[in-house]
Amino acid sequence: MVYVLAPTGPRPPAYASDKKAVQKRLRRIEGQVRGIQRMVDEERYCINVVEQVSAVTRALQSVAIELLDDHLSHCVSDAIRSGGEEADVKIGEASAAIARLVRS
Amino acid sequence: MVYVLAPTGPRPPAYASDKKAVQKRLRRIEGQVRGIQRMVDEERYCINVVEQVSAVTRALQSVAIELLDDHLSHCVSDAIRSGGEEADVKIGEASAAIARLVRS
Amino acid sequence: MVYVLAPTGPRPPAYASDKKAVQKRLRRIEGQVRGIQRMVDEERYCINVVEQVSAVTRALQSVAIELLDDHLSHCVSDAIRSGGEEADVKIGEASAAIARLVRS
Amino acid sequence: MVYVLAPTGPRPPAYASDKKAVQKRLRRIEGQVRGIQRMVDEERYCINVVEQVSAVTRALQSVAIELLDDHLSHCVSDAIRSGGEEADVKIGEASAAIARLVRS
Repeated sequence: MVYVLAPTGPRPPAYASDKKAVQKRLRRIEGQVRGIQRMVDEERYCINVVEQVSAVTRALQSVAIELLDDHLSHCVSDAIRSGGEEADVKIGEASAAIARLVRS
Repeated sequence: MVYVLAPTGPRPPAYASDKKAVQKRLRRIEGQVRGIQRMVDEERYCINVVEQVSAVTRALQSVAIELLDDHLSHCVSDAIRSGGEEADVKIGEASAAIARLVRS
Repeated sequence: MVYVLAPTGPRPPAYASDKKAVQKRLRRIEGQVRGIQRMVDEERYCINVVEQVSAVTRALQSVAIELLDDHLSHCVSDAIRSGGEEADVKIGEASAAIARLVRS
Repeated sequence: MVYVLAPTGPRPPAYASDKKAVQKRLRRIEGQVRGIQRMVDEERYCINVVEQVSAVTRALQSVAIELLDDHLSHCVSDAIRSGGEEADVKIGEASAAIARLVRS
């Protein structure tokens, strides 16, 4: 099955089953970003604004870590089971994404 | 009076002069978070979603770093010039916020 | 093959082939930490010491990211190919290690 | 004399009083890095090695945060009290170091 390997293919991504939960978390993060805008608007104390930014950063990282976990459990695992060089590509991609996340 | 420097006092925070610029960046970040929701909705490839989350994390950290820089230049500097233990409190607060940010 | 599944088993870890390269990087990092001690001893400027600490932190994270990449390419891949719940255990472990690294 | 504020001047840095404590923490970190080399040498399980690298990263960041706190309390505070553009230079330097640390 060729499309197992194609990132942009019609196969639903790993997080498809959790899509609702991921969206809920992202909507909450969006609300938190709007909350920070409100804090700035009301000229709230800088340190409190910075703390809130740190909280949102942590929430975003949690979403990224969960997406990566789903990705390893599904896309990467499928590629490994299918064998071939696609598995290496997938692992390389995942490692690059981990590196980017660690450094952000 | 020393406590015009108090966090909840009527004095505008350090970022007041840059409020527009900060708000613009936060609105852009809010848009990026909505963009990630759209990516999830369209079941885009996990790795691309994770990369976008890393980008938003970096953007948030930049805002936090700028707010901290403003805070050191204004609130903390004012407290240091006024002398007294308020300066220590302010520096302690800033260090705690830096620690939280470094670990997020 | 039972020992594919055993973390503490006799099977060499994923980084075994790169052991020399990993050790070389770790020895370099050890030297950098000693360099920071020398800087502190000579009472060098704080900011320069902090910059050097950031450089060592980045070097350590690079080592961790490479070890994780090797781990995904070998241990985790082997477990996935062997099938069974060992694969889930391995992916869970890797995700936890990624989370720990992102938050450090 | 203005140049007591200069980075390379003869004035002891902020951490001078805590020099022993800082050195003790750095020696401990050096020992931890050697411990990781031993783990690699004994071909210990990758995930355990990665966890240990994360622990050392956190320990280094704690040292950096403490050095920055000392720096704000002494060098930066002195420059602010002395007034003039040296204060801006010092705050700019500190913010750049914070940014580097947050992104490492």
